[in-house]
Amino acid sequence: MNRVIHVPLHRVDIGQADSRTVDDMGERMVVIGGDATGMAAASQARRLRGSDELEIVVFEKGNHASYSACGIPYWVSGDVAAADDLIARSPAEHRERDIDLRLRTEVTEIDPAGRQVLSRDLGTGAQSWTSYDKLVLATGATPVRPPLPGIDAEGVYGVQTLDDGQEVIDGIAAATGRDAVVVGAGYIGVEMAEALVRRGFRVTMVTRGAEPMSTLDPDMGALVREAMVGMGIRVVTDTEVTGMRTGSGGRVQAVTTADEEYPADVVILGIGVRPATDLARRAGLPLGEEGGLLTDLAQRVRGYDDIWAGGDCVEVLDLVSGTLRHIALGTHANKHGQVIGSGVGGGYATFPGVVGTAVSKVCDLEVARTGLGEKDARRAGLQFHSVTIESTGRAGYFPGAEPMTVKMLAERRTGRLLGVQIVGRDGAAKRIDTAAVALTARMTVEQVISLDLGYAPPFSPVWDPVLVAARAAARAVARGH
Amino acid sequence: MNRVIHVPLHRVDIGQADSRTVDDMGERMVVIGGDATGMAAASQARRLRGSDELEIVVFEKGNHASYSACGIPYWVSGDVAAADDLIARSPAEHRERDIDLRLRTEVTEIDPAGRQVLSRDLGTGAQSWTSYDKLVLATGATPVRPPLPGIDAEGVYGVQTLDDGQEVIDGIAAATGRDAVVVGAGYIGVEMAEALVRRGFRVTMVTRGAEPMSTLDPDMGALVREAMVGMGIRVVTDTEVTGMRTGSGGRVQAVTTADEEYPADVVILGIGVRPATDLARRAGLPLGEEGGLLTDLAQRVRGYDDIWAGGDCVEVLDLVSGTLRHIALGTHANKHGQVIGSGVGGGYATFPGVVGTAVSKVCDLEVARTGLGEKDARRAGLQFHSVTIESTGRAGYFPGAEPMTVKMLAERRTGRLLGVQIVGRDGAAKRIDTAAVALTARMTVEQVISLDLGYAPPFSPVWDPVLVAARAAARAVARGH
Repeated sequence: MNRVIHVPLHRVDIGQADSRTVDDMGERMVVIGGDATGMAAASQARRLRGSDELEIVVFEKGNHASYSACGIPYWVSGDVAAADDLIARSPAEHRERDIDLRLRTEVTEIDPAGRQVLSRDLGTGAQSWTSYDKLVLATGATPVRPPLPGIDAEGVYGVQTLDDGQEVIDGIAAATGRDAVVVGAGYIGVEMAEALVRRGFRVTMVTRGAEPMSTLDPDMGALVREAMVGMGIRVVTDTEVTGMRTGSGGRVQAVTTADEEYPADVVILGIGVRPATDLARRAGLPLGEEGGLLTDLAQRVRGYDDIWAGGDCVEVLDLVSGTLRHIALGTHANKHGQVIGSGVGGGYATFPGVVGTAVSKVCDLEVARTGLGEKDARRAGLQFHSVTIESTGRAGYFPGAEPMTVKMLAERRTGRLLGVQIVGRDGAAKRIDTAAVALTARMTVEQVISLDLGYAPPFSPVWDPVLVAARAAARAVARGH
Repeated sequence: MNRVIHVPLHRVDIGQADSRTVDDMGERMVVIGGDATGMAAASQARRLRGSDELEIVVFEKGNHASYSACGIPYWVSGDVAAADDLIARSPAEHRERDIDLRLRTEVTEIDPAGRQVLSRDLGTGAQSWTSYDKLVLATGATPVRPPLPGIDAEGVYGVQTLDDGQEVIDGIAAATGRDAVVVGAGYIGVEMAEALVRRGFRVTMVTRGAEPMSTLDPDMGALVREAMVGMGIRVVTDTEVTGMRTGSGGRVQAVTTADEEYPADVVILGIGVRPATDLARRAGLPLGEEGGLLTDLAQRVRGYDDIWAGGDCVEVLDLVSGTLRHIALGTHANKHGQVIGSGVGGGYATFPGVVGTAVSKVCDLEVARTGLGEKDARRAGLQFHSVTIESTGRAGYFPGAEPMTVKMLAERRTGRLLGVQIVGRDGAAKRIDTAAVALTARMTVEQVISLDLGYAPPFSPVWDPVLVAARAAARAVARGH
């Protein structure tokens, strides 16, 4: 374990100088962004180093910190009663642990050479420089908002922050009609479509993709579409949105495409997110092909000893394809925070990478994927066999046994497991974890067949569906071609 | 791949000779035992070799073949309507595929030197020798029946075969009172206790163990006991059964212990099973310390090129402790059948071993274990850190989030994952699969922390409970001592 003894340099404060002074023996950790990564990093660093050793300042431009963004659709649907339920730890709790959390304060400039950041109080407009010894970038991601006519109209919402969620809930309450359009069909889009149905809206989903959920192969995405249609959602595929038509009051009235117009009192943008790295870019920090910050395995920004980054603003190593990707997910964000906090606190931890696991609930379907889909695999230069099997989540004779579809990709010749997609009902989603671990261990499908998985009639057929798929995949590999 | 070309030897038939003759170009596969392993082996061999190449004869002493023994408690409880539901493939279906299944026919002797088996038709009493080129032992396991007074009384049942299940169901219908005692507290005992409660019995469970489910550590077993007590089951621990008191009609009336007597109209023996290897022992085949047949990785009986064995009558390699163990489970039995059928059919497959995964439903609890418990680890000479954490199966704020307890053992110094036990509700049991794969891959708990598991609020907190346990275990390893 390398413990770097860091001697603070003399710092020059510019502009409205930060009034706090750092003790000669102490250091200051500055965190930009107070959600999963930022607050996890702050908390973990605090666990390792007390207030006398480390001052911690967190700048968060929004009104909330430490919340579960993934919970927003369930708040909108009414499953979760209040925004407070989504908040893991309140600002007061953070402050009790001597974490100086400054809400509604936006960092507008980073000066890596001078080791300081410029921030602006969004209430008063006051600006000040704050020096740092260790800087953490946890700026997250921003929903994509294509420059379409009407995209900024009232009634059009992205869903990323708790503040966004509140806007949607207020917008729903204020809406005079009951038509909603979801643009895009990723996880958030699909979850929001369901939430709006449960709020009594007629929902249309418009996607440019061939099927909902482009993280699945289209044959598996079709199963998701069927479930959505079964729930009364109109799913419009292969269709590009051209804009929003607004009424005289500036409020959205319809979503337009080349061929048609879909009435809309509420529009949700679920087109995806991109890393919020404008600040980092302006500071000259290294960004990857997908716009995320580049880091080493300890989540330090490449080329910098005193800057860390994690969560939705970085690119992560995909262990299956060996490439860097931008995958915005709360799990990684929290793990990054832990790793960063350990590093800043003088401990040691690394984040080895991801295999691309994601699960979601769509109506009564459970949807899961890990590893590479067909398109991903081709892009990585891999040749593969692909099999799809039908099984059940419980023993076939057990009450409540429901169909489960498992698709599995195995590399040609080596038989290495490349990816799994599962669509089913009770117990389908978390079965993907078996495949996620097998991918991490770089197992072949032949090895997967022999895995000693849990079996009892209420939980699984004697051959777990993942093993059934592995048997089919191994046969395909053995036949070769 | 070694493909052994086997030239059939001249065979001498003794006694009532089997009337069938084997074509000079063909071979005969004889299978002893027509349940999971035996029928899976027969089916897989048939898939690889047609009737012109391979004759397949299966001897089964019971009335049924190819059934799910694990489903019996759910048949008794009424969850599963009929015995037929538990039968994966009917005798007629097997016969259609040219598998000569002979029910109610017991093999009483194996002559490995003469390559023949002696069988007896349990209906007619007729005996005959049948020669084989390839022999498969799939004789299963037998419920332990200690030689206690009254153990063979009417109303005392073991639960292993479908015929046993029918006896229990008939016995329940015939019982005049509503008191039931389950002796032993393994999976079958616990599942049967619940089934009997659902059939309207007052149930007492008597076990010599400190807690139910000795495959769990006692602290985790205590959670199972609490759930059972909550369901109205009386659980008597640390108690040895001394016998059964019977009435004048020879029917059981009570279960006796040193201190007390428990009224019983029905008694279920759930004391465990032992490998049914008397036949193999008499034939001089090699048995291990736990009484199971010893095989190589292709499931061939050690020292024999033409005899295979699998399922509940063999010992399996425990990959975590490196020892041979007898673990009677349908999953292994089915895998063994596949491996054997491949070998007999001229293909190639192996069974690398197990990690000791088992899951069960007890009342509304889900119970799971994999790898080594504390006692197992000590017996294997391993020193370890043990941690227990509480989490929830869904995001804490999500409706229906229920507590989940995860215990994890990690090897001292190396940090290697040794075992996991989980007790919880919805979604607890199959989470064990994550640990099962990690054990197979010999991961450290530090590696487990970084696993990319599925996360969405309806399915998991952002840190899956297994990862939370891994974090605690890794801290314990890092602290050392």
